[in-house]
Amino acid sequence: MTGPLRTSAPSGVLHELAALGSGVVVHTEPDVTDAYRRDQASPFLVPAGTPLAVVVPRRTQDVARIVSVAARHRVPVVPRGAGSGLSGGANAVDGGIVLDLSKLRRITDLDPASMTAVAEPGVLNADLKAAAAEHGLWYAPDPASAAFSTLGGNVATNAGGLCCVKYGVTREAVLGLDVVTADGREHHLGRATRKGVVGYDLPALFAGSEGTLGVITSVTVRLVPKPPPPVTVVAAFTDLTRAGEAVAAAVRRTTPSLLEIMDGVTLAAVEAFRPQGLDPTYAALLIAQSDLGGEAGQEQAKAIEAMAVAAGADLSMVSDDAAESELLLAARRLAYPALETQGQTVLDDVAVPVGRIPDLLRKVPAIADRHGVTIGTFGHAGDGNMHPTIVVPHGDAAAAERAAHAFDAVVELAQSLGGTATGEHGVGLVKFGHGTRELGDTLDLHRRIRATLDPHGLFNPGKAV
Amino acid sequence: MTGPLRTSAPSGVLHELAALGSGVVVHTEPDVTDAYRRDQASPFLVPAGTPLAVVVPRRTQDVARIVSVAARHRVPVVPRGAGSGLSGGANAVDGGIVLDLSKLRRITDLDPASMTAVAEPGVLNADLKAAAAEHGLWYAPDPASAAFSTLGGNVATNAGGLCCVKYGVTREAVLGLDVVTADGREHHLGRATRKGVVGYDLPALFAGSEGTLGVITSVTVRLVPKPPPPVTVVAAFTDLTRAGEAVAAAVRRTTPSLLEIMDGVTLAAVEAFRPQGLDPTYAALLIAQSDLGGEAGQEQAKAIEAMAVAAGADLSMVSDDAAESELLLAARRLAYPALETQGQTVLDDVAVPVGRIPDLLRKVPAIADRHGVTIGTFGHAGDGNMHPTIVVPHGDAAAAERAAHAFDAVVELAQSLGGTATGEHGVGLVKFGHGTRELGDTLDLHRRIRATLDPHGLFNPGKAV
Repeated sequence: MTGPLRTSAPSGVLHELAALGSGVVVHTEPDVTDAYRRDQASPFLVPAGTPLAVVVPRRTQDVARIVSVAARHRVPVVPRGAGSGLSGGANAVDGGIVLDLSKLRRITDLDPASMTAVAEPGVLNADLKAAAAEHGLWYAPDPASAAFSTLGGNVATNAGGLCCVKYGVTREAVLGLDVVTADGREHHLGRATRKGVVGYDLPALFAGSEGTLGVITSVTVRLVPKPPPPVTVVAAFTDLTRAGEAVAAAVRRTTPSLLEIMDGVTLAAVEAFRPQGLDPTYAALLIAQSDLGGEAGQEQAKAIEAMAVAAGADLSMVSDDAAESELLLAARRLAYPALETQGQTVLDDVAVPVGRIPDLLRKVPAIADRHGVTIGTFGHAGDGNMHPTIVVPHGDAAAAERAAHAFDAVVELAQSLGGTATGEHGVGLVKFGHGTRELGDTLDLHRRIRATLDPHGLFNPGKAV
Repeated sequence: MTGPLRTSAPSGVLHELAALGSGVVVHTEPDVTDAYRRDQASPFLVPAGTPLAVVVPRRTQDVARIVSVAARHRVPVVPRGAGSGLSGGANAVDGGIVLDLSKLRRITDLDPASMTAVAEPGVLNADLKAAAAEHGLWYAPDPASAAFSTLGGNVATNAGGLCCVKYGVTREAVLGLDVVTADGREHHLGRATRKGVVGYDLPALFAGSEGTLGVITSVTVRLVPKPPPPVTVVAAFTDLTRAGEAVAAAVRRTTPSLLEIMDGVTLAAVEAFRPQGLDPTYAALLIAQSDLGGEAGQEQAKAIEAMAVAAGADLSMVSDDAAESELLLAARRLAYPALETQGQTVLDDVAVPVGRIPDLLRKVPAIADRHGVTIGTFGHAGDGNMHPTIVVPHGDAAAAERAAHAFDAVVELAQSLGGTATGEHGVGLVKFGHGTRELGDTLDLHRRIRATLDPHGLFNPGKAV
């Protein structure tokens, strides 16, 4: 991993950082800096550098001061939230600073009348949801990591989740951002209104930029009415392709608030891990929800069930009982933990046009066979965003290598179906080759924009684009 | 208006453009070029240049060739769709080329299974809607100009409309774009999937960029299920502030598919223009729709009606009859035409946080009084995006000047309420001063990004940022 040229001895930058005061903590103890080397990306797929220091501000206004010091010394900066990312985007860079933003966790404004909130980047997604709920409101973006991931990280990765099929990704919820650019200046981007076309949509440019354009110091988001409790539909299929067709039919005729799929491998893993009473011989399980509430929710759920049956579901049920709904969804939530119990896992993340889901589902097992690995596929079927998860035995180096090849093959399959290398986890390091190849001729355009904001490559060098 | 330095005589560039062949038409006849000087922005608010030529390609691949010729001669290029914009963004630049994209009107792909369409920039919004409807699908963005505005223009302005309150603005529907940058290169930006985080979100950067970053040659959009026929709610108020409170209550508890407001001035104008049986003494009329269909639609509409009544509506009704719904909405659609019959109009376009709508509604009449003009306010209340429309007598130069001052005062009022100078019409020329002031310190960041893509200021010089 190459960083920008460091023009002074490490002691200079460390001295200046330590002198910042006002609660800025600078860690150089190896046991601390070691803990900051990696995010949650598979260690055997991506490298991690050894940071010079971990810097932890306690006030947003210190971020600009930290960046200025780093910029002056040309020391790379890796912004980091909870470190829960899955792409290596927050992995440390050799000789660089890891800028830990997780202590900036104040919700600075919550305006129920305008349905907006302003929060520091280290606020947990779940904490903002809880604050909004006190006013009957909801912060919609719901990555699976919501309980422990930060808003800043959610914005930097343009995080997805289960509700995107109806409520969109993080970008759709972001109205404004404060960011510190590589020149140490703080900029307020965007606005507090739902609509607005003054200037370029820079909040959207920063959403998903993976810490390469600047450091997010404040996030202004839109809140929505808290939806009523969901009605849940489950449909099981002995034929994988028919399940894919049920998904296509459902999204074409209605907009559920959740539309997930799990294949037979995943189903069997869940049943072996924590028996849910699922028949592990089914090829696929479809889980959908309606959050319209009342009669409307019942009506929509029954319509989706009817579409699943028409597509060839062998079993289906609808429940509006909250506990039962949560139980039905539990199978989906257990998908990755269950696969993890079966060996070393590599979680992939691809997206295809929704009409190509049946093709993706049909072709992934062939990749598993070809590479001698197990692949359990589950994900956000309603968005075409799937997580084929490769499982190999622990401690088997040859199998790990096969897993890496299968990972690549899954990405190439998605791309060959008109899809993309990553739907919601980000490029980071793990998809760097795939992502840059996918961008092709436009890579240059991306790099020029990056260089405009960060001419010396201060932020997250070697990642994303 | 300053354009880039032209380094050769006009005859050189005209000769080269004329030599492009393959159906590229170059107009220099003054009666043609005159017709291309302006878009629909108020002529007394913005200047218009005299173009050197109007160039009309018939194949998208010729756009890059035209741009290359213009770039070599450093002749400014103003991209233009239907010319229906309201900001002067498509007004000609002295000595420049107007690039008329309205003849590029093929829908090149419509994939009902993946619910996506690919269209050339000159395709009319309404034509794409009609093509989608053949498959039970809908292209949601619905600016009032949908019948005659083009997709390219809709993207370039990030057009809004009536349905944004539920379906979002044009940006939310755009998955991918082909663009020609100032170096004459064509780039494919974005993707065909609903989710994807490879590279920066450049389609979002181009959405609303008002022709300043490149020329859009193809648009890939997302389609949604065609909603069922709407149920319509109308509520009349004798107190303007209460109407604003009804709006705030409605958006906080539910998501209607339409939520519009008209003030008493507008109501009286509509009634005088085409009597709808509206009592012109009401201070405000609220119009909402639910497109959930069936019982669900009825339920939501009645809930919105109940909120309006609770906020103090003096009269309310709900209708699920299609003809009656259209009639109720007709009053809103007639708002601007009705005000136009009363004199020379200046249509403003501001957005405020939804909680500030009551303040905006209360303070606009004071601006009207102060400047001695009539202002009818109507708009997309559910998004906080309002169109205070200033009316002055035709041919009265002093009144026109007062109107211009009132226009500024409305923008400044919205900004003082935490709002923005333009919600959906764009900055163009008409909001150039307001917009650049609103951007403040970040203007420089915008200009650096613009200069990266267009270092010589080829595209739409003097506009937007």
